[in-house]
Amino acid sequence: MAASLRSAVSAVTSRGTSRFSTVVVRASAGQINPSIRKNEEKVADFVKVENLPTPKAVYCRCWRSGKFPMCDGAHVKHNKETGDNVGPLVIESPAAK
Amino acid sequence: MAASLRSAVSAVTSRGTSRFSTVVVRASAGQINPSIRKNEEKVADFVKVENLPTPKAVYCRCWRSGKFPMCDGAHVKHNKETGDNVGPLVIESPAAK
Repeated sequence: MAASLRSAVSAVTSRGTSRFSTVVVRASAGQINPSIRKNEEKVADFVKVENLPTPKAVYCRCWRSGKFPMCDGAHVKHNKETGDNVGPLVIESPAAK
Repeated sequence: MAASLRSAVSAVTSRGTSRFSTVVVRASAGQINPSIRKNEEKVADFVKVENLPTPKAVYCRCWRSGKFPMCDGAHVKHNKETGDNVGPLVIESPAAK
């Protein structure tokens, strides 16, 4: 949670006047990547075209794939849950149909 | 803090007398893509290797690039602001050094 948000929420929850206060804050301060390679300062991936894993290589851009950096279709669930419209990047070799 | 979030929190803090307050803040409902091609149901991009724009083609995965689907370095600002660690996908042709 961003510091500004944390202090704002803390200001709310520490007010003792209301008996029942629930403040739920999500979205991890606007982070896009919830869990992939969080030990790395920046997750960049480099692929030589001759090393593409398949003739039609589908790369994740939603940061929720269990096969990252490849797409596993996780964007479908994310889009459904949030109303978002993200999708993958597809790199096609000449061998791809 | 996003304007919508700020106003939501502010709405709570100004209602200190209410006994039952429940506030759920979702920060754009967890969407990853704030503004790119929002008229499309799903933003997927297809590129043939023979059509890569440069020998070292750097593709955006932060959904904040002004040159989407290419990277313009916008992830640097995003990472700094949120503590995130996203970065681009780089596709290298044999001609790339």
